[in-house]
Amino acid sequence: MPRKKRHIRKPVGASPGSVIYVGGGKPHPVAISCIRFGPERFNEITLASVVASDFRSPPEEQLVTWIDVDGVHDTTILEQFGKALDLHPLVLEDIVNTSQRPKLEDFDTYIFVALKMITYDRRQRTVSSEHVSLILGENYVLSFQEDPGDVFEPVRNRIRTGKGRIRRSGADYLFYALLDAVVDYYFEVLEQLGDDIEDLEQEVVERATVATLREVHNFKREMILLRRSVWPVREAVNGLVRDESNLVSDATRLFLRDLYDHTIQVIDTVETFRDILSGLLDVYLSSISNRMNEIMKVLTIMSSIFIPLTFIVGVYGMNFKYMPELEWSFGYPSVWIVMLLSALGLLGLFRKKGWL
Amino acid sequence: MPRKKRHIRKPVGASPGSVIYVGGGKPHPVAISCIRFGPERFNEITLASVVASDFRSPPEEQLVTWIDVDGVHDTTILEQFGKALDLHPLVLEDIVNTSQRPKLEDFDTYIFVALKMITYDRRQRTVSSEHVSLILGENYVLSFQEDPGDVFEPVRNRIRTGKGRIRRSGADYLFYALLDAVVDYYFEVLEQLGDDIEDLEQEVVERATVATLREVHNFKREMILLRRSVWPVREAVNGLVRDESNLVSDATRLFLRDLYDHTIQVIDTVETFRDILSGLLDVYLSSISNRMNEIMKVLTIMSSIFIPLTFIVGVYGMNFKYMPELEWSFGYPSVWIVMLLSALGLLGLFRKKGWL
Amino acid sequence: MPRKKRHIRKPVGASPGSVIYVGGGKPHPVAISCIRFGPERFNEITLASVVASDFRSPPEEQLVTWIDVDGVHDTTILEQFGKALDLHPLVLEDIVNTSQRPKLEDFDTYIFVALKMITYDRRQRTVSSEHVSLILGENYVLSFQEDPGDVFEPVRNRIRTGKGRIRRSGADYLFYALLDAVVDYYFEVLEQLGDDIEDLEQEVVERATVATLREVHNFKREMILLRRSVWPVREAVNGLVRDESNLVSDATRLFLRDLYDHTIQVIDTVETFRDILSGLLDVYLSSISNRMNEIMKVLTIMSSIFIPLTFIVGVYGMNFKYMPELEWSFGYPSVWIVMLLSALGLLGLFRKKGWL
Amino acid sequence: MPRKKRHIRKPVGASPGSVIYVGGGKPHPVAISCIRFGPERFNEITLASVVASDFRSPPEEQLVTWIDVDGVHDTTILEQFGKALDLHPLVLEDIVNTSQRPKLEDFDTYIFVALKMITYDRRQRTVSSEHVSLILGENYVLSFQEDPGDVFEPVRNRIRTGKGRIRRSGADYLFYALLDAVVDYYFEVLEQLGDDIEDLEQEVVERATVATLREVHNFKREMILLRRSVWPVREAVNGLVRDESNLVSDATRLFLRDLYDHTIQVIDTVETFRDILSGLLDVYLSSISNRMNEIMKVLTIMSSIFIPLTFIVGVYGMNFKYMPELEWSFGYPSVWIVMLLSALGLLGLFRKKGWL
Amino acid sequence: MPRKKRHIRKPVGASPGSVIYVGGGKPHPVAISCIRFGPERFNEITLASVVASDFRSPPEEQLVTWIDVDGVHDTTILEQFGKALDLHPLVLEDIVNTSQRPKLEDFDTYIFVALKMITYDRRQRTVSSEHVSLILGENYVLSFQEDPGDVFEPVRNRIRTGKGRIRRSGADYLFYALLDAVVDYYFEVLEQLGDDIEDLEQEVVERATVATLREVHNFKREMILLRRSVWPVREAVNGLVRDESNLVSDATRLFLRDLYDHTIQVIDTVETFRDILSGLLDVYLSSISNRMNEIMKVLTIMSSIFIPLTFIVGVYGMNFKYMPELEWSFGYPSVWIVMLLSALGLLGLFRKKGWL
Repeated sequence: MPRKKRHIRKPVGASPGSVIYVGGGKPHPVAISCIRFGPERFNEITLASVVASDFRSPPEEQLVTWIDVDGVHDTTILEQFGKALDLHPLVLEDIVNTSQRPKLEDFDTYIFVALKMITYDRRQRTVSSEHVSLILGENYVLSFQEDPGDVFEPVRNRIRTGKGRIRRSGADYLFYALLDAVVDYYFEVLEQLGDDIEDLEQEVVERATVATLREVHNFKREMILLRRSVWPVREAVNGLVRDESNLVSDATRLFLRDLYDHTIQVIDTVETFRDILSGLLDVYLSSISNRMNEIMKVLTIMSSIFIPLTFIVGVYGMNFKYMPELEWSFGYPSVWIVMLLSALGLLGLFRKKGWL
Repeated sequence: MPRKKRHIRKPVGASPGSVIYVGGGKPHPVAISCIRFGPERFNEITLASVVASDFRSPPEEQLVTWIDVDGVHDTTILEQFGKALDLHPLVLEDIVNTSQRPKLEDFDTYIFVALKMITYDRRQRTVSSEHVSLILGENYVLSFQEDPGDVFEPVRNRIRTGKGRIRRSGADYLFYALLDAVVDYYFEVLEQLGDDIEDLEQEVVERATVATLREVHNFKREMILLRRSVWPVREAVNGLVRDESNLVSDATRLFLRDLYDHTIQVIDTVETFRDILSGLLDVYLSSISNRMNEIMKVLTIMSSIFIPLTFIVGVYGMNFKYMPELEWSFGYPSVWIVMLLSALGLLGLFRKKGWL
Repeated sequence: MPRKKRHIRKPVGASPGSVIYVGGGKPHPVAISCIRFGPERFNEITLASVVASDFRSPPEEQLVTWIDVDGVHDTTILEQFGKALDLHPLVLEDIVNTSQRPKLEDFDTYIFVALKMITYDRRQRTVSSEHVSLILGENYVLSFQEDPGDVFEPVRNRIRTGKGRIRRSGADYLFYALLDAVVDYYFEVLEQLGDDIEDLEQEVVERATVATLREVHNFKREMILLRRSVWPVREAVNGLVRDESNLVSDATRLFLRDLYDHTIQVIDTVETFRDILSGLLDVYLSSISNRMNEIMKVLTIMSSIFIPLTFIVGVYGMNFKYMPELEWSFGYPSVWIVMLLSALGLLGLFRKKGWL
Repeated sequence: MPRKKRHIRKPVGASPGSVIYVGGGKPHPVAISCIRFGPERFNEITLASVVASDFRSPPEEQLVTWIDVDGVHDTTILEQFGKALDLHPLVLEDIVNTSQRPKLEDFDTYIFVALKMITYDRRQRTVSSEHVSLILGENYVLSFQEDPGDVFEPVRNRIRTGKGRIRRSGADYLFYALLDAVVDYYFEVLEQLGDDIEDLEQEVVERATVATLREVHNFKREMILLRRSVWPVREAVNGLVRDESNLVSDATRLFLRDLYDHTIQVIDTVETFRDILSGLLDVYLSSISNRMNEIMKVLTIMSSIFIPLTFIVGVYGMNFKYMPELEWSFGYPSVWIVMLLSALGLLGLFRKKGWL
Repeated sequence: MPRKKRHIRKPVGASPGSVIYVGGGKPHPVAISCIRFGPERFNEITLASVVASDFRSPPEEQLVTWIDVDGVHDTTILEQFGKALDLHPLVLEDIVNTSQRPKLEDFDTYIFVALKMITYDRRQRTVSSEHVSLILGENYVLSFQEDPGDVFEPVRNRIRTGKGRIRRSGADYLFYALLDAVVDYYFEVLEQLGDDIEDLEQEVVERATVATLREVHNFKREMILLRRSVWPVREAVNGLVRDESNLVSDATRLFLRDLYDHTIQVIDTVETFRDILSGLLDVYLSSISNRMNEIMKVLTIMSSIFIPLTFIVGVYGMNFKYMPELEWSFGYPSVWIVMLLSALGLLGLFRKKGWL
């Protein structure tokens, strides 16, 4: 299973706050899309660069601006954001550092959240994660992603169609809606994983092979990585709920509490999968041992019955001059009878031991 | 063991607060039963729909209204409740979302509790859970269940007959009584599980087969799921005990503390079962290894005794022209003596090793 | 190992606070003994029933009354206590419910503690527990036990002989003395268990059989149950130490702190035993594997030496017309030499591998 | 490994606060040594008994008195201390009860600390512990040990020679110095244990036998006991650091904080050893399995090659009248060729499987 | 894998606060380098000894002095520092004691941090750590290392070139930059370890040998040691973040919070590696068992097919006078047919069992 290799962090020795991209892969052109909406209005444009005025809303209208950036490898664009919104250098570093752990930082005038978008490739059975950074300012939300393609489409559609409360609410609700979209997709991934793990369970108990073992180990590994991605999300969301920032309204806080519940449910499910997978290795070992017993029984029964018989026929194959039995006319049939009785006796013994 | 498949949560991309039913199975008609009682009065009717006036009690009487809804797939009915009692959309979502984790939410004018009703199918040895939501308002209690058939019948009977303190107490006591009925039934389920696990222990030690292994794994799995259902109930009940809402009287809080004790006992028992089951897999492996030893001993004894004998008789089956032993008249009996001694010597050796 | 079967809790559907006996076994007649003492006075009587006046002490004397009830299946007697001392129905339920988890409840005018008396049957190697409830009131102590026979005899003797501080102290010190007697007996049980576990360790390493495995599993099981009985005792005693009730004097609180230390030591010891027993299963598996190796070595050595020899003698047992070796006069001895060399060579190889 | 057997606690039924010795072994005569020192003065005497005046220091001099008692089985001496310094009976009980868990008790006028002195017998590979009690009063320190011989000699020498700050500091610094001497010796023991565990690791991987298994189990057991002795020391020292008693000066508190760091390091090391030892059992099992594989391969190769050959020679050992091959002049050599080819074929197969 | 042996702590009995070097190895000459810089100025010199005036900065300039000491075995130099800066003896002891656990101590006028510099020798696959002590004073930073060669070169370069904010910030930022350099290098080490563990995983599943087992055990051991080095770093950095000392400015505290995040990520990664390695041993055992099954199958199939055949040919090798079959002209071919059928039957049976 090929996995996109990436450095764990910025190059050693780089000055703290340096904006250096550490993700791997071929870079694609950075796309900046900007959605601006209010209860009555809505427009969607694509930007080439940003300046501070992009975030200013006519005061009488209270429009919300959402700028979504696909691609964080172009650090000059990031520095434009930094300048336009006066973002701390460490925030820019965290946006670019795609191996950054999910976290929440409250800088009074804006709130920064880093988290992971999880996808599951069902054919390769690998989980991969994409680094997503969200920033909530007074009337804007920024979202940064590594690659094009995301889980925010339903949110965009709700804005476009004006369904639900999203158009009537402020930037904080949009911020929540984006977080919710990410966490919601975890459930999607977990459901697929759950199905595959159930299949694997069936396989382990019924026809475990080395490939099954590899599969179990692989799933355990993915689960360890998944867990690492979702545990800190819980902390970050909890921080948001308890945060006293006035960027988040009380109404939205209620929704964040609900989101927090969902992150706990995600973690619960991941832990449950881990527990089941841990159990699977034991079951695997037991079922291998069982099969070994099966094999040994066959060997033991075959050997135990025929080895004595072979000895008996060996006896009468000896070439001694004086072997009276060889002369007896009923010698041959008696040997057969003795051998049959011995074989039956052993079979009976094995049946009594429950081996047959 | 067929298990009712269900989605983990609402469809990805649905707006938060959307009331979308995610349970599976064929829907049955929704039944709404309404019980209204006071110390002196009691009546029981079936409703087709609800309006706000259903919850108003004549002030001089202080009647308690309990509306029980069987079936949460009909979202229009839920929205009637939402409108009549001004419930938060997230509450409606949590009622409908049958995979919601047990939790407590206090919305000042009402308290919402989600939990799981557990049943154990003894023949299939599967634990299944049903999502139950309870809402305590000022003089009413709502209960929502997925399917008809519940554990509330004893509570209904106590109301009908006027036994115990239930008719004399307020809505909060009824609320507690319903929670208590659910938790009480956990004990029933645990007792049955306990009996089955004890049988399994016997089986593992005495006559473990692959089927036993599958059984142990199955029970461990059920225990993981059961644990996931009951752990958060404890938190929710603890929240109720510490909640300072004035919907709950001090007298009832005492009963809730007792209920909290019971949830701890439930969790204790589940953990004990898990510990015992974990130990069982080890015992299983050990007993399989033991049996393997048994088998190998038989093979080794049979082979070790007869293989040398077969060699000896082979020697005198050779056709060399000049083999002096073949001519001796006492050759044949001497070979028998040699073979007997060798067999006895090996038997003695094995007895000394403790293999016989 | 036969174990007294008991229900986990009261029948499903019973009203909370119902006083329903759930213990099993043949009921014996309930015995109520009453000891009343002060620094100077002491008398001991047997009661048939109780009324409120039994607990009233002449104010000038400050006598302490200790009523001990053996047998909790007769609920009418319990209800007499309930009435005489105005006990909460939930307390009566907890006294009768012999599967109640150890706990502490402070009801201002009295303190209720439930705990378990542990006994260890050394021949059957089973730990059994008896439910004990203690109530501390202003100048009285109540104790309820399931069966006759208890660990309180030393306390009774100290009261009778006036040894130690017990006659000079109040009801709270008596209450402490009873708790201390129960916890002290845990050490007695643990010491016996420790001896038996040490024997078992010896056995596992030296001559493990299936019976040993069963023994280890049995001990682990008992330890799980024991742990469940003693863990909550620690919480309850800690609750007493931190409780600010004025039923307990500061002098007694010092003793309770000491008792708390002892409960921690009990738990420590139980955990140590669990750790040792867990290790034992691994050692068992390892020693079984070791023995299997032993067996396999014998089989392999015997087979590897004799199978080639048998082949060689088989060769010269063939009946081909033209087999030159058969005619040679030194053929037979040469075959013996070849066979000896081959056997010696293999023996040397095995010795080099360290198998001999 | 013979181990000094000792009771876990005082005899059941003894009154709380009873001063009853529970250690085993032959009692030796109790030795009481008294060191009294100030910045300028120092004298060292041996006492036969103690009275209150022994602890009074001439007010103008501020001398520190350190009384060290070797042997706690003579309870009359302990009761002299109790009377002279007004010690609580529970303290005397804790001094005598050699199985008391390490702990800290602050009685305002004095601080009591119980802990364990650990020694490691390298030849027998057993860890043994000796109960040590320390009491810090206003200008005195008491130390009680079970046996003669201790780790305090360096402290005595520092007092005698006047090196370091000990003579210039108060009783609290002496108290710290004694605690530090005990904890320092833990490092000594751990270093020796570490060396032995490293040897054991080598042995397990390279030439594990049943004796190695026993050794690993033994070390794990010692580690469980060691852990039980050192964990509570950490709590006790932490208690001292946070204790607000004015018996301990701020300067000394700084040293105690350092000591606390050392206790954490001790626990860290013990846990590391436990982790390594736990891993060793797994490695042991794996290496046993590996060796089994080795053995089975030899058996399988030998059997698989020679059993078919034996069959072939058996065929031409048959006595059928009409067996054309027997008459062929090239029959015998052809059989040899067939056998050689079959053996080579199987050898090739095994080499391909990687078994050779 | 040779490992630099070192004592765990200072010699037993040494007075607390004694400055005694416990590291091993051949000592090298101590090198003291001093960098002094301000926004405008910068100079770098080598010192032979230190006096208090070295740390005084002309007040109008606010220069920052960084003194780096390579080698802590020369205690006279350390005592010069102690005198010049009035450092507590325990700090000097902690600098010299190279086995000191990472920790933070705030002494009002300076902050002391001990931590470990980790390096990974990729060929020997061993992790080794070097003790580093950092002291932050009002306008100076001290760093003490065991050996020449460090991870601070990038920081020195940033000072020399004036890149980043380091020249414009105070001593606290320099202090942070040094901590950051150490923690950053952990990521470097973890990345290399991660690659090696991934290779090992591949190896275990595909071609596990005893050497692989040793490798897994070795890595687990290194991980245990690594974990011990990095866990307390987290606490120390957290202490710095929460410390209210005015030696650290708010701007720097923000960077320290970021550093704290990184230490958590380090620990996360170490734990993930541990989890993966633990799983590997299980996979190893399973794959060994699998291979054993493979071997046993071959043995069983070969034996089960040929042993009966050998018996049959043995029968017709007997020398009885009256064996009618021997006379039949179709006797020989019929025996062949019987043998072929028996072999095919067994092969069919094994195929049905899935062994072929």
